[in-house]
Formats: sequence, structure tokens, C-alpha cells
Amino acid sequence: MNSVSTSPLSIPTIDDVIAAHKRIKPYIHQTPVLTSRLINGLAGAELFFKCENLQKAGAFKVRGATNAVFGLSADKAGLGVATHSSGNHALCLSYAAGQRGIPITVVMPHTAPQAKKDAVLGYGGKIVECEPSTSSREAVFADVVAASGADFVHPYNDPRVIAGQATCAHELLQQVDNLDAVIAPIGGGGMVSGSCLTLSQLAPKTKIYAAEPLQADDAARSFKAGYIIADDAPHTIADGLKVPLKDLTWHFVSNHVSDIFTATEADIVMAMKLVWKHMKIVIEPSSAVPLACILKHPEVFKNQRVGVIVTGGNVDLDSLPWL
Amino acid sequence: MNSVSTSPLSIPTIDDVIAAHKRIKPYIHQTPVLTSRLINGLAGAELFFKCENLQKAGAFKVRGATNAVFGLSADKAGLGVATHSSGNHALCLSYAAGQRGIPITVVMPHTAPQAKKDAVLGYGGKIVECEPSTSSREAVFADVVAASGADFVHPYNDPRVIAGQATCAHELLQQVDNLDAVIAPIGGGGMVSGSCLTLSQLAPKTKIYAAEPLQADDAARSFKAGYIIADDAPHTIADGLKVPLKDLTWHFVSNHVSDIFTATEADIVMAMKLVWKHMKIVIEPSSAVPLACILKHPEVFKNQRVGVIVTGGNVDLDSLPWL
Repeated sequence: MNSVSTSPLSIPTIDDVIAAHKRIKPYIHQTPVLTSRLINGLAGAELFFKCENLQKAGAFKVRGATNAVFGLSADKAGLGVATHSSGNHALCLSYAAGQRGIPITVVMPHTAPQAKKDAVLGYGGKIVECEPSTSSREAVFADVVAASGADFVHPYNDPRVIAGQATCAHELLQQVDNLDAVIAPIGGGGMVSGSCLTLSQLAPKTKIYAAEPLQADDAARSFKAGYIIADDAPHTIADGLKVPLKDLTWHFVSNHVSDIFTATEADIVMAMKLVWKHMKIVIEPSSAVPLACILKHPEVFKNQRVGVIVTGGNVDLDSLPWL
Repeated sequence: MNSVSTSPLSIPTIDDVIAAHKRIKPYIHQTPVLTSRLINGLAGAELFFKCENLQKAGAFKVRGATNAVFGLSADKAGLGVATHSSGNHALCLSYAAGQRGIPITVVMPHTAPQAKKDAVLGYGGKIVECEPSTSSREAVFADVVAASGADFVHPYNDPRVIAGQATCAHELLQQVDNLDAVIAPIGGGGMVSGSCLTLSQLAPKTKIYAAEPLQADDAARSFKAGYIIADDAPHTIADGLKVPLKDLTWHFVSNHVSDIFTATEADIVMAMKLVWKHMKIVIEPSSAVPLACILKHPEVFKNQRVGVIVTGGNVDLDSLPWL
């Protein structure tokens, strides 16, 4: 019988976050918080950049992936983990599985860039290729899981992953006092949900904003509509932010986010270059969306102390968007 | 009467370093130390990158410049500071003078890139242009100093500047234990001298190496010859490393450096891209020379714990050397 699932959501709690932080600490960096007087001047606000681009594997997603991998029982772990992703989650889950010494299979369209495949292979991941369609991906992935018994770690709609991502805001609160707001990019909503989980419990006065490419603004439209709207294959340079919200992340976004702002492609590239030039760090386009939104909405952030989550730094250095 | 100066050198001491560190702390960043498992694997050593590219004004030179500026008496400070440089020292001295609120004049050839001029102006510096020759620069600079009474802060051959640069190794020793070696780029020798000053006193078992572009290898040749050899206008992508040693820096280099290695232009670009790609930080070509040398001489650094001074991150993002 086909029916819509009505099972209650498994919502992670702040205790899960604290347990996750303890579990993953040996395998991740405590990333630095950087500031720029020049960019503060442009923004009219005091910005604290939480640099997850300097994280292991170059992205915050290593937090959730590591929490999922190291939370498995020995028996389950022996069967390995699997996911479908051609982005940072695939890299980060491969890193985490390598740290625990367990098998990892990534289902990826054969059209994915060779650099992404090489990066997964470099971390010891095994790749199974599918066609570049949802139906092929789901069929191939079901076969992989059935054959191996591997544990499926979803890129964001998984309580273990959200609790892991929530350790980023947990660290940030230990590094910076009295934040008026935190802003993070939103794609599937894993980082935003983790930030909501931590801040709603430990810093309830800190507002939470999300930042999204205008060309992939499904979360902003969902937020206004009051239900999840999923786009079909949006195009944006911020390629980490193309995926839609799911039930678990929608729970956090709909309950705790104050607003979702959008930025044009040109705004994103400008903000990205600004950070490279003045902060001397390599950030990927997705990571530039929050700054682009801050610069577009100075009235919202004026004179505030704002945590800005820089989500990752995995870019193709041979093809930069301003060149 | 013309004669070679025989006045004794004014050699800074470790007490000067400790005083400098206290003096400049409010105006500089304590820069992070970053590591990369992948680059460690390539090097066969444990590398600790001291990230002065993330320093104020994007370069370690802000340490020496700030020490000189804030060490001036109120009377002297009122007359301002001056220097001749078209590189990071000009930027950093402008930053430091701005922090103290005193005048700063930079003599720069009119042929210097507009981006460099804009950066100095952006920090509140005043530019006086000269012809692109040593004679013009010296004549114009003498006029500036005579007219203003400004204090000349040399880019490296100045005990206040060397004591300031020495605070970088001082910080590194507080951040990383048991370093077998420290390696830094060498141009005029300010950073290397500062590192020698601190390490010879506080960590005498830590070896000190310098790294130089093969196409501007005057320090390596000086080191072998036993006296200063100055090249006339060498060409290298590592444009911060073209200047020659002077008497004060030669004192430290000749007494405390274990060896000076060289790297080709191709080695430098490869190492620079490696750091951008895997460490997600923007470093300038000069800063890549130490890693290039480590990768060329694995036998020297094998299994050692090595501090690598990343000196700066001021690059033209519109013209990258691998594109």
C-alpha cells in the first residue's frame, strides 16, 4: 500500500548536539573566526566569519558526516555507509568513513566532474555511477544498499547529520560573545537547521537568517508559502545550494528562521571576490551568499554583531567566476 | 670625507622582542596555525603553516611597522613616518601610521601598479612619486625626509622592524610545541632575522632555514660566499623577495641560518596552487617558496615538525600565475 508517511519526525535535541561535539572533536578542526575591518566598513556591521572552508575536507559537512559514522554500532559500521551526492557531502562522508576505517560507497552521475570523483577516490571512497536522473540514482542507490547493507547517510535530512552540523554554531558561541544574529547559506537546510537547533536552545535572543541564490530561491518561496516548494534543477553558480528542503530541515527553518534573503549571481561573485581579496581565504560561491545578502540589506544588520557561516572552500581554481 | 661606516650595529635583543609583542598586540591579529594532512603526506613531514597572510593588511610586515610606529616618542611621532617601498611594507606602515593617527609618506616609482598605490591610499598613506631608478628614489626620499622631519622606517634593515617581525616566531612557539625547524622566505631578510632572533634565544635546538627563488638567489649565494652579494633587479614571480640583504639582516642570517634553499618559478607556482587548493587560503607567490623548497628536499625535512612562515596574501586575483 502506498501512503504518505505519518511517522513522527525524529528531531535532534541539544543533548544530541553536545554528544555529537564530543564524538567528532578528534576528527575535525575547531575552525577559526576571522574578521575584516574593511568588510565591516562596507557592511556597517561587525561580521564574524566562521571559517568552515578551513575545515577538514574543506566543508562543514564533515561535522554531520563524522557524527553519523562514529555514532554507528560496531556491527552496523562494519557494513559501511553509503550516500548519493556529487558535492561536499560525498567528500566529507568519505573522509569520515576513512577515519573510522569502514567502507563507503557514493552513487554519483557519470556526468559529475572528474575533479569531484577524484576527490572522493582520494579519501578512499568507492564510486558507483548512475545516469544523471533521479530515477536512475534512486534505483542504483537502492541496489547498492540492498547488496551491502550499508547505512544511508542523507546529506541533510538526517537527525545525526543535523546534530553534527549544529556543532558549528556551538563552537561559534564559544568563540564570539553576544551575537545579535547568525546567517548561513541555505540549500537543503542542514547547516541552517543545525544553527537553529543550537541557537534556539543556547542563545535564544540571537536571530537566525538564511541566504539563498535568487536563481534557486525555493527555500525563500517555501518560507513565504508556509510549505515546502521544491524546484526542478535550478541553475546557480552556488552549486551547493540547489537541493530542496525536506521534512526535518523544514521543521527547523519554519520554526526558528527570522527571514530568508536572496542574492543575484552577480552579487554572489562580487561577495566571493571581496572575501578572497580582503580576507585571503578561498571560499566557494555558496559561502559568499550570506555576505552578498548582508550587503544588499544593510538596514537589517546595521551595527549588529553577526556570525557569518562560511560553509566551504572547494572550488575549481582553473575556472574562477570573475575571470 | 667618504668612508665605509664603522659604527657598531644596533642588534635587537629578545627583550626587544617581548617589548615589541606587548606594544603591537592591540593592533595585530594572533594569526592561526593551519595544517593539511594531504600536504604533510606529500612532504613526508608535519608542517605547521603560520598564516601571516591572514594578518592585518595581509602581511607579516605589519608587525615590524607597528612596532616602529608605536615605539616613537610623541614628539617624533607628530612628524610622521616615511619609507620607500612599492610592496607590503608600504601598506603595512600606512596601516600602522593610521592606527596611531600620524602622517605617513611613501615614495614609490610612478610605474608602480595602480592597485599598490590604491592600497596605500586606502590606508590613508600619502604617495610621492619618483622615477623608477635608485638615484631618483634616494633623491626624492631625502627631500621628503628633509621637508617633513619624518622618521625613516626601513622595510627590513632596522632593529625596530626586526624585533617586530620576531614576534611572529614568538607567537608560533606559543602555538606549536617541539618544532624541529622553521623555514621562511628570504628577500631582504627581515622575517628570517626576526625568526633567528627569537628562536636562537627561546628554542635554540630549532633549526632555521631560508627559502629563496632561484631567479633571485642572492641570499643563497651570499650565504655560500660569506659576504653580502646584491643582485641588480632580478626577475621572479615572488616579487617580495627581490631585495638584497643588508648589514643587520646579514648579521642574523650568517650567524643563525642552517641553510638557504632555492626554488624555480614553476616550483613556486605549483606550491602556491597546492596551498590554495588544499588549505583554502590565498597566499602570494613569495609565501609559497618555503613549501616549494621542502618538497624539493624531502631528505632534509623527513618526519620533522616544521614551522612554515606564510608571509602574505596580497595578490592580483585577476591575474593568477597558473592561468
